[in-house]
Amino acid sequence: MEGVDYLAAERKKAEFDVEEMKIVWAGSRHAFEVSDRISKLVANDPAFRKDERTMLPRKELFKNTLRKATYAWKRINELRLSEEEASKLRFYVDEPSFTDLHWGMFVPAIKGQGTDEQQRKWLPLAYKMQIIGCYAQTELGHGSNVQGLETTATFDPQTDEFVIHSPTLTSSKWWPGGLGKVSTHGLVYARLITDGQEHGIHGFIVQLRSLEDHKPLPGITIGDIGMKFGNGAYNTMDNGVLRFDHVRIPRDQMLMRVSRVTREGKVVESDVPRQLVYGTMVFVRQTIVQDASCALSRAVCIATRYSAVRRQFGSQNGGPETQVIDYKTQQSRLFPLLASAYAFRFVGEWLNWLYTDVMRRLQANEFSTLPEVHACTAGLKSLTTSVTADGIEECRKLCGGHGYLCTSGLPELFAVYVPACTYEGDNIVLQLQVARILMKTVSQLSSGKPPVGTMAYLGRIEPLMQYRCNVQKAKDWMNPNVVLEAFEARAARMSVSCAQKLSKFSNPEEGFAELSADLVEASVAHCQLIVVSKFIEKLQQDIPGKRVKQQLEVLCGIYSLALLHKHQGDFLATSCVTSKQASLANDQLRELYTQVRPNAIALVDAFNYTDHFLGSILGRYDGNVYPKLYEAAWKDPLNESVVPDGYHQYIRPLLKQQLRAAKL
Amino acid sequence: MEGVDYLAAERKKAEFDVEEMKIVWAGSRHAFEVSDRISKLVANDPAFRKDERTMLPRKELFKNTLRKATYAWKRINELRLSEEEASKLRFYVDEPSFTDLHWGMFVPAIKGQGTDEQQRKWLPLAYKMQIIGCYAQTELGHGSNVQGLETTATFDPQTDEFVIHSPTLTSSKWWPGGLGKVSTHGLVYARLITDGQEHGIHGFIVQLRSLEDHKPLPGITIGDIGMKFGNGAYNTMDNGVLRFDHVRIPRDQMLMRVSRVTREGKVVESDVPRQLVYGTMVFVRQTIVQDASCALSRAVCIATRYSAVRRQFGSQNGGPETQVIDYKTQQSRLFPLLASAYAFRFVGEWLNWLYTDVMRRLQANEFSTLPEVHACTAGLKSLTTSVTADGIEECRKLCGGHGYLCTSGLPELFAVYVPACTYEGDNIVLQLQVARILMKTVSQLSSGKPPVGTMAYLGRIEPLMQYRCNVQKAKDWMNPNVVLEAFEARAARMSVSCAQKLSKFSNPEEGFAELSADLVEASVAHCQLIVVSKFIEKLQQDIPGKRVKQQLEVLCGIYSLALLHKHQGDFLATSCVTSKQASLANDQLRELYTQVRPNAIALVDAFNYTDHFLGSILGRYDGNVYPKLYEAAWKDPLNESVVPDGYHQYIRPLLKQQLRAAKL
Repeated sequence: MEGVDYLAAERKKAEFDVEEMKIVWAGSRHAFEVSDRISKLVANDPAFRKDERTMLPRKELFKNTLRKATYAWKRINELRLSEEEASKLRFYVDEPSFTDLHWGMFVPAIKGQGTDEQQRKWLPLAYKMQIIGCYAQTELGHGSNVQGLETTATFDPQTDEFVIHSPTLTSSKWWPGGLGKVSTHGLVYARLITDGQEHGIHGFIVQLRSLEDHKPLPGITIGDIGMKFGNGAYNTMDNGVLRFDHVRIPRDQMLMRVSRVTREGKVVESDVPRQLVYGTMVFVRQTIVQDASCALSRAVCIATRYSAVRRQFGSQNGGPETQVIDYKTQQSRLFPLLASAYAFRFVGEWLNWLYTDVMRRLQANEFSTLPEVHACTAGLKSLTTSVTADGIEECRKLCGGHGYLCTSGLPELFAVYVPACTYEGDNIVLQLQVARILMKTVSQLSSGKPPVGTMAYLGRIEPLMQYRCNVQKAKDWMNPNVVLEAFEARAARMSVSCAQKLSKFSNPEEGFAELSADLVEASVAHCQLIVVSKFIEKLQQDIPGKRVKQQLEVLCGIYSLALLHKHQGDFLATSCVTSKQASLANDQLRELYTQVRPNAIALVDAFNYTDHFLGSILGRYDGNVYPKLYEAAWKDPLNESVVPDGYHQYIRPLLKQQLRAAKL
Repeated sequence: MEGVDYLAAERKKAEFDVEEMKIVWAGSRHAFEVSDRISKLVANDPAFRKDERTMLPRKELFKNTLRKATYAWKRINELRLSEEEASKLRFYVDEPSFTDLHWGMFVPAIKGQGTDEQQRKWLPLAYKMQIIGCYAQTELGHGSNVQGLETTATFDPQTDEFVIHSPTLTSSKWWPGGLGKVSTHGLVYARLITDGQEHGIHGFIVQLRSLEDHKPLPGITIGDIGMKFGNGAYNTMDNGVLRFDHVRIPRDQMLMRVSRVTREGKVVESDVPRQLVYGTMVFVRQTIVQDASCALSRAVCIATRYSAVRRQFGSQNGGPETQVIDYKTQQSRLFPLLASAYAFRFVGEWLNWLYTDVMRRLQANEFSTLPEVHACTAGLKSLTTSVTADGIEECRKLCGGHGYLCTSGLPELFAVYVPACTYEGDNIVLQLQVARILMKTVSQLSSGKPPVGTMAYLGRIEPLMQYRCNVQKAKDWMNPNVVLEAFEARAARMSVSCAQKLSKFSNPEEGFAELSADLVEASVAHCQLIVVSKFIEKLQQDIPGKRVKQQLEVLCGIYSLALLHKHQGDFLATSCVTSKQASLANDQLRELYTQVRPNAIALVDAFNYTDHFLGSILGRYDGNVYPKLYEAAWKDPLNESVVPDGYHQYIRPLLKQQLRAAKL
């Protein structure tokens, strides 16, 4: 049956140019070409097989990851891949490993926080992977609150060294990826102490293991922190634990671009603006939003294809049952996630632009827009990762029982994705940061200082407070301006309402704490507005290809109206829409589901994922699901023998009523 | 540090009698005593250790489960445990195994569907476990829709046998627990064919494996379907695949209590009412609701205790940071789940009563209330399992990064729980069944036939349509009648609104399909009302113990007002409450969080879970989290050697730039 396309009929239904949509999704023809070429290169190389991953015990799994990472590096060198191509290759290998932290955290941190001299010394070693680095910040007792870290770096003027020490059990470094078994060096964050005085948290390059035999250096206790959620998933990574017993490093291994410690032990600030950290932050969060659209689109691709393959109920006169994708309940859960994948893709693209913009401003010493930039990147990281984590699990449920099998790919996708809700800022803590900036912005509205960027709409606070939605029929909701205004009014009114409640507290901090759950809701409303507005902006661009833009308009409608329906309470409580208008939005939403239905398979084909990358039998391009599920079952270790190991010791004595003598 | 109680200060804060609350949670003093005794028996027996479970590869994991299941059976016999005690023991062993299906499906199905003669023949064998049975219904291509099953059972009058056959790949039995490696017999559901005519789906007892050497009998292909979601979790179960190639069984192995096949091949219906199946259904679903409250309460117990141990931010003058349980954002996510655990416990208790009531009615040939009973059990199964699955994951997130470690217990709890949303009826399919009965009830309101049971409120449709909430201050929301009326009005109006929209369709089935997403929302509103009303009814009982009832009133308030806030859109769109009143409900909710805060630890202590059963370092009774996390890390297989396996082949060649010669 190989070579048959069970989804061919579905693909014929598509009303738009899929090839052009692939370019839109990739961001550019160049990006598409690189992605397409590298993803196929990985998919066609048996060394990168991953279909046995969820069955491997931890040690074998980890060893196999070491092999793949080293092999990938070999191929990158052999093929002389560019930095862009190399990064894509690691991406399509699709397996968390120590190289993620080496390239994604260790190298950038040295670039961002090291002096020119330090960069000259360390970067060439890191670029050639002659050293492997990790980012050792979080501790057993300390996560989000960096200022609470306990590890100390005490300057010893006698020897011109820092003494790195873990004073308590809770100060053990805990979680850093690549630390447990691989990294030779760590970028260790610790409290700087000179002459008995504390000087806050700073980064130090500490060699952890011998470059000759890989053993931990004296004074260093190091190990893996153990199994994490899921089969395969993040268990390919050696997240580590690390304790220091008075480990000495030379003074020049403190990263000194912003502050330095002199030979005499004085702390001196440089004239490099500390705000530079914002550039890195926007860069990292942009990557996280891109990853969100990628993870969500993978899950949606699997669920959409399998929803077209799977049939349940509705058989008439003994004919085939109905494809589950034709059920409105399925559509109302699946299509908003499909639309969200596209929405997150476009907001990620915009964040990419924002990064360039921020860097330009920083170089011009223009810092005034930074709080707003901080708010929008923090908020978008939080929003997109939360929706994606929940969305993957929803896609798994949309596949029925078979979604529970590892061969569906969805359990591993979920397990490997969910940490994104916690790392780089816990999602709730981030929304509270957004809320804080929103409240400050609202409180300054009367000062005449107009809010900027994604908060600019708050400058029109008076019309937004007076706004009344003028939708009269369902179709009116297809007008992007109508949608945008409703979302702006809702977000603005929720912020103003919080600000009013806050003003009743004599102690503002107490008020902020007491109202924090409401503040998070206001912040989410603000972030949803950003995503809606960036989707709408995207549609104002020139988008070539037959009916490509029309499809995106349908998706934009689904994204915003499904949100409006889900958060109906906000829109009604703030009197932004009437219940009649909310009901019309829901009618329009159903109509849009009908419109997107024939295009659903083509819309997930546009992601251009190989079967290797998807890693899901349910999501196979050719829809040949059941024979392949059947085939895969026999590969489970339990099927190595017909009669299971344990039959003679346990099952037979049970059946034969001979338990007294059994060794149990 | 053993023996220190880090949560002692928290326990001192409790304002109510925890010991009495334990009785309320258990349901009775007797139930408490049995649970307490058996859970400690399991916890203290090293044979039932489970802390290494998530690290075991599949074959070892499975073999270990066989050992535990057999050992459990041995202990049950040695200690001469009652049926109640034996079932509790299996429950506290806390590991899915073939015995679940043997006792939970195979035995009850023979009891319910077998003739007296069949019961006399098969039950004694099953009771002694001389045979082990599974329940083979679902197929590779067929889940929810039993009528779509393809396996055939063709009567051969020549030999007086049935020929069981799998005509297609998609007809392979797929998923049955205990089938893959253990069961000697299966209760196989197949299309009955006699004399060339189809007679629907029936159950057949088929021997699968030899009782001598455990090999599959001729014509039978059997195996395990492979890895499922999560570490440990359901991978202890041998969910199986099974194909028949014309397997012959004697005629008397069709379960014939309701219909039988005569020697001549005629299908004859007995006079046993088919509605008897409802009794089993209520029984099974009551168990599922009990399980939901159990799983949710475990997760809540872990998250609550760790939220009191964990500190983040808010340090003043170098003092300790703030316990995260003191943050309103944490409370607003955690306490509604705590309240839901109690709410589900009480609605489960009521379902248990309903089961007795239904059995009494069935014996009196009284079938009129069955549709309502079907609706409420289906709806409650759906509601409680969905909330519990999401709630466990929310609890995991509430534990921050450490919730991602298997030693937190939460990943496995989630992975092992989520199938409950799919088995025994997909949760969305079930809500649609409820909606169908709701619509029928609404359409018959004018007929003068008053709705019964949990739908009785619809009999007061006129006052409910005219209802206006008279809440004027936050405290008013503490009046149970006010809450109940608002929930009744919301549910009634949502049903009526759906019914009105449906009436506009000329084809009712088309309307039902088109509006199915809205119908699900109406059905959920109805089910939430049931839970709220049963919680309120519970509080009308006599509940002894110092301030026990007061605590439950606070929890009932949190349960209902958190729902009201979450579904604000429903309440506002149906004009049941004003936005001012919704805002007051939210104010009251915050006040209730403050009231429950000092009692939180005691409220989870009342579940009386042993550390063994909880299986979570974060949820330890003594709060001694960090030293134990640290200790546990070293047990990971990766830590067996300091230098990892794979260093010489992969890491060293990378660091030493010797990749060309490396074998990768």
